[in-house]
Amino acid sequence: MSKVPKPVSGFPEWLPEARRVELQWIDIMRRTFESYGYASIEPASVEEVSVIQAKGDDADKEIYALRRLSGEQTADEPRLALHFDLTVPMARYVAQNFSALQFPFKRFQLQKAWRGERPQEGRYREFTQADIDVIDQGSVSFHFDAEMPRIVHKILHTIGIDNVHTNVNNRKIIQGYYEGLGIADPMKAIQIIDKIDKIGPSGVQQMLMSQMGLTEDVAQKCLQLAQIRSEDTGFIDQIRALGVSSALLDQGIEELKYVMDRLSDLPKGSVIANMSIARGLNYYTGTVYEGKLGDYPDFPTIFAGGRYENLVGTYLNRSLPGVGISIGLTRIFGKLLKEGRIKLGEKSPTHVVIINTPESDQNELMRKAELMRKNSVNVEVFHEPETKTSNQIRYATRKGIPYIMFASEGADEIKNLETGEQTAVDVASWQPDRHNTYQSRIEPSQRCSVLPLAVPGPK
Amino acid sequence: MSKVPKPVSGFPEWLPEARRVELQWIDIMRRTFESYGYASIEPASVEEVSVIQAKGDDADKEIYALRRLSGEQTADEPRLALHFDLTVPMARYVAQNFSALQFPFKRFQLQKAWRGERPQEGRYREFTQADIDVIDQGSVSFHFDAEMPRIVHKILHTIGIDNVHTNVNNRKIIQGYYEGLGIADPMKAIQIIDKIDKIGPSGVQQMLMSQMGLTEDVAQKCLQLAQIRSEDTGFIDQIRALGVSSALLDQGIEELKYVMDRLSDLPKGSVIANMSIARGLNYYTGTVYEGKLGDYPDFPTIFAGGRYENLVGTYLNRSLPGVGISIGLTRIFGKLLKEGRIKLGEKSPTHVVIINTPESDQNELMRKAELMRKNSVNVEVFHEPETKTSNQIRYATRKGIPYIMFASEGADEIKNLETGEQTAVDVASWQPDRHNTYQSRIEPSQRCSVLPLAVPGPK
Repeated sequence: MSKVPKPVSGFPEWLPEARRVELQWIDIMRRTFESYGYASIEPASVEEVSVIQAKGDDADKEIYALRRLSGEQTADEPRLALHFDLTVPMARYVAQNFSALQFPFKRFQLQKAWRGERPQEGRYREFTQADIDVIDQGSVSFHFDAEMPRIVHKILHTIGIDNVHTNVNNRKIIQGYYEGLGIADPMKAIQIIDKIDKIGPSGVQQMLMSQMGLTEDVAQKCLQLAQIRSEDTGFIDQIRALGVSSALLDQGIEELKYVMDRLSDLPKGSVIANMSIARGLNYYTGTVYEGKLGDYPDFPTIFAGGRYENLVGTYLNRSLPGVGISIGLTRIFGKLLKEGRIKLGEKSPTHVVIINTPESDQNELMRKAELMRKNSVNVEVFHEPETKTSNQIRYATRKGIPYIMFASEGADEIKNLETGEQTAVDVASWQPDRHNTYQSRIEPSQRCSVLPLAVPGPK
Repeated sequence: MSKVPKPVSGFPEWLPEARRVELQWIDIMRRTFESYGYASIEPASVEEVSVIQAKGDDADKEIYALRRLSGEQTADEPRLALHFDLTVPMARYVAQNFSALQFPFKRFQLQKAWRGERPQEGRYREFTQADIDVIDQGSVSFHFDAEMPRIVHKILHTIGIDNVHTNVNNRKIIQGYYEGLGIADPMKAIQIIDKIDKIGPSGVQQMLMSQMGLTEDVAQKCLQLAQIRSEDTGFIDQIRALGVSSALLDQGIEELKYVMDRLSDLPKGSVIANMSIARGLNYYTGTVYEGKLGDYPDFPTIFAGGRYENLVGTYLNRSLPGVGISIGLTRIFGKLLKEGRIKLGEKSPTHVVIINTPESDQNELMRKAELMRKNSVNVEVFHEPETKTSNQIRYATRKGIPYIMFASEGADEIKNLETGEQTAVDVASWQPDRHNTYQSRIEPSQRCSVLPLAVPGPK
């Protein structure tokens, strides 16, 4: 028995009934991305190490490099590694295929990424991300800064996740404000402010003073900005009240106002202008996003992104700005599964099992099954005519298959295993009750793959 | 310009218009697998090296091992590697989740695999496989030996690939026949016979004589078996005519006869009983399959598989036989793309672009777009009201988007960019002409993602 290999920690695997839900989530994501005109691309899982590391930010600590187990490593062979996100590969792909792409280039990627970090809640070594980005030449329309969180909101709502907080900010507000305060190294200050959740406001203030030589007054002013939140454009008056000004700050306010205005139809409280959001990555230059599960405030960010001016164009000496969001599919799915909030469906996609007997005309059963498959009904002819009918029914029940069929010439009958109801049917036109099969239960209009919190979550 | 990283050879990437077709192939595969009751699983991409190597067959030469680029390697950290096929991970997954699964366990996997081999035509370092397997306790019904090639045939037909040769054999025939000839090491003889395509019949005969000490007569008898082909159960008489017999041979003939009989409704010539097929892997014990593209006879096998008794159960000291087929999705797609036989569709999933102007009520355009998305219409509101209408139309044309819409209160009009026809529409109910959008063009009934050979292929 001890010969069964143990699961490798950090590489999640689901049972078939959970995988079915994950696939439906993926379907919803793809369908929603496509409904807004985003096209799928799937760059290789592997990049040259030098390409991945160009992103900087100590990301290399987590990168899985590849080495052939027994083959000779040739000198000219580039060093290869698994990608750790989908943004860097997209930037390289766009640069490489620049002349073949049409701009604005709107793409989505639903793909795995790998990080060699120590697994902990919400962190996996292998995980699926769902990314959307728009890249354009010269400038990218602010239309997309508002569209991104709208699409993410719609996806999560369709899945059944509504208590989501989308925090939005603009790097220009922070940088412009710091400039207005006369801070020489705004980037450094941003990185310190970013620790506010970990070390608290007074810790941040101390760091700003000791590490950057700011006066207590200026450090306080920094903190005051970071504490501004509004569910509408109220953030503007709050910033103005702090009495700091600069041209860059004005521009940032204008941009964030546009995004908040365009999203004002979303449910109250789901979009928050939050001046503490900076995003660690230094390539963001404007709008930044960070999403949290409202039910689990201590759980890590479930989606994040922003606007960047120089990520793609650097390869080509061109201006190719972009804006994008990455959703942590595995992170969200793993958390809700662990919390018992994924409504698990059948263990099989089959709608109906055709009961088989030694007297059955096998070709006739197969023909009927094919007829039903033409109408998108998923059908199994039971694989062993010798098996007792009661055991064939038990097989269907154990897999959660909702219907069985008794086939006989001119008098086919289908039995609903949940209600026990049995009726004569025309196999050429029969359809399963769409409320009785999992696949239909998660249609967008139904949205019940995620159960509501049984106990109200912490606030 | 030289800053653009080069593509890494063996890691294929497609442009959006090709990726759209690949996604449709994946949809067809998934839908077909599900229509026969196969459930998706997705084991991790990574296994412990010892698990992968247990399969033997020098496979380790091609395995990509993982190593964190900068992290310290800890002593207790298992050595990890990317899987090189989907069968070994499935076996490990079934063993690990044995008590949670229902048998017969029918699963499919549509997933990537990696091999560190030198890229050449049909061989990639990263590729997608589409696998189906059935695993059962004690014994697995022969129903599935016939179902596997039927499903693969249906998938390829739906995609538009009809000239496919499915070669079927049974290991018991070869082993039983060799036993009947008194050959001590049938496995060794199988491996030599397997080289018949490479070194020809006389080369094989020489090897059988020199390496196994067979007489010329016995070696000839081996070759005679390997040369038997039939498109029906005619292979039986041909084997009997060779005058060799054994109980195992009889059993193999019986099993292969069952499969050929059950597939007799498939188009003539698409299924071939072929006594030269052995499959190199030593875990096959009964039925074996090997598929070829009829138009490209020198191109490698496009799908392969068979029946195995001991792959899964070894972990558990149980009998868990299975039967399965693996389709080389990337191999087939890459070949047909290279041959210019993939009908490329639009560069975008969008059906209609709503023309935007400085006078447009932005909220109203957004509302109309959402209304259309509810009916599964993919819509973009053009992202820049300031852009000239002619340039907005050019954007749609360049991406291959089939429709544009002029929105105005109570009088929305949609223009078909291909025919030039413009008509008043009700946005709440409008649907694109399903023959005018790529997504519908590949509906199973239409099957036109693959073009017929312009020039008849070699025979």
